[in-house]
Amino acid sequence: MHCYFNGDIIPVEQASVKINDLALLRGYGLFDYFRTYNGVPFEWDGYWARFTRSAEVLRLPVALTQAQTADVLAELYKLADKPDIAYRFVLTGGYSPDSVSVVQPNFLIIAENLPKDNPEGRYRGIKVLPFEFVRDLPELKSTNYLHMIRLAAEMKSQGAADLLYHKDGEVSELTRSNFFIFKGDTLITPDQNILHGITRRVVLELAKKDFKVEIRPLKVEELEEADEAFTTSTTKWVMPVVQIGRQIVGDGKPGVRTLKLLEQFEELVTGYGLVKA
Amino acid sequence: MHCYFNGDIIPVEQASVKINDLALLRGYGLFDYFRTYNGVPFEWDGYWARFTRSAEVLRLPVALTQAQTADVLAELYKLADKPDIAYRFVLTGGYSPDSVSVVQPNFLIIAENLPKDNPEGRYRGIKVLPFEFVRDLPELKSTNYLHMIRLAAEMKSQGAADLLYHKDGEVSELTRSNFFIFKGDTLITPDQNILHGITRRVVLELAKKDFKVEIRPLKVEELEEADEAFTTSTTKWVMPVVQIGRQIVGDGKPGVRTLKLLEQFEELVTGYGLVKA
Repeated sequence: MHCYFNGDIIPVEQASVKINDLALLRGYGLFDYFRTYNGVPFEWDGYWARFTRSAEVLRLPVALTQAQTADVLAELYKLADKPDIAYRFVLTGGYSPDSVSVVQPNFLIIAENLPKDNPEGRYRGIKVLPFEFVRDLPELKSTNYLHMIRLAAEMKSQGAADLLYHKDGEVSELTRSNFFIFKGDTLITPDQNILHGITRRVVLELAKKDFKVEIRPLKVEELEEADEAFTTSTTKWVMPVVQIGRQIVGDGKPGVRTLKLLEQFEELVTGYGLVKA
Repeated sequence: MHCYFNGDIIPVEQASVKINDLALLRGYGLFDYFRTYNGVPFEWDGYWARFTRSAEVLRLPVALTQAQTADVLAELYKLADKPDIAYRFVLTGGYSPDSVSVVQPNFLIIAENLPKDNPEGRYRGIKVLPFEFVRDLPELKSTNYLHMIRLAAEMKSQGAADLLYHKDGEVSELTRSNFFIFKGDTLITPDQNILHGITRRVVLELAKKDFKVEIRPLKVEELEEADEAFTTSTTKWVMPVVQIGRQIVGDGKPGVRTLKLLEQFEELVTGYGLVKA
């Protein structure tokens, strides 16, 4: 696979950054991640808008326009020679003379193989562990994933796939994905202290057709009243959450409403980018 | 200058990390920074202990023992051929096959030139801006310095040198250094949500001889009662803080007690490592 790095397209294994990059020394960087369906970048406008908003928050200029970046995506796709690939954007503070000052960001676009698909996992659901935490600048897809990596062993030993962040009695998100519950036919998802997921937005659009949708603060106590729960992300699609810590959600199996949304999402992406006859 | 990188000693400009390092992709890394006086690493035991404690919190094994690391420090010092140098430790999550799993950390020890000394700055003091924030895992010298870099332009435009973090009515620290106030002859410094600075510890030892020392939560309201304020770090030594936001501290000049501690610290490091006759 290849990557774009400050103007050049090179094999990924040849790409490296010098050790005075601010992402390495100071964690000053951001990223984004999306994929193609049928060779077409999914919801590209949405991902681009989020990436450039994040870059503005970190005051890092992006060296390419959206059109120029689209050309890079097309070239990386051609070089990959696969039906579908993922793209990872990484924008760092760049090389710093004093380990503090930003001079020129480093901009990487990495073509990646898709993670192995796990359709049966989606029909089994996952367990998550509640964890008291709120991300700093949560609207930002920054590269700060301390707890996710630090607590990987605990999660594994408890058979959990992720952490569910909550703070001051309110639920926000998982470490890399958004969170939803169903109470009856009402779908509820938090509106604060979250990354505004593109998959979240697409799923909310789908859900509006069949369910009442409430986008509002979600209290920790409400988790007990949940009939169903799920999480959404680029790689997870609509992933049922069947256990939260010690609490079994509903009957411990993926809920029917959740599965309906999953099927609708799958149908949407399966046909994505195909010209309709 | 040279650096140690996973077993090799190479010129700094030849050192680079591959783009799938978890520090770059996920901000998963930590560092430490210290210097020599008279060619002897200052408070080496203390810095080593803090570094290895931080590594344990991130569950990153350190490939060298303290004795092996001391040998590396000596070799880097010899190669630098200067009276004094600084060392930067960087320990990252290493190269990850899936941008999440830790396989093998990358361990760097970088020899650096000392930052330009600014003795007159210490006799002028600095202004800091209050900023509501508490670091995640504050006892950890992690590489998360988002606000420090993001707000550099604001600080500069307001003539400020740093941010003073506070949260829930309590003051903690500056972005890279500890914080103290004097009320009369009583020295007060926070004990929670801080990085336990080595310079802080040394200065507290010095202060105990002449002042009453209180290591306890410091309320934001107490800042108004401060007769003097200062910050300590490896590079700043004892740096007077003469303005906090709009508030002038004392008479707006470095305080006499602060300057006394600065002089004592300077005397200590000037003679550090020298064999006494």
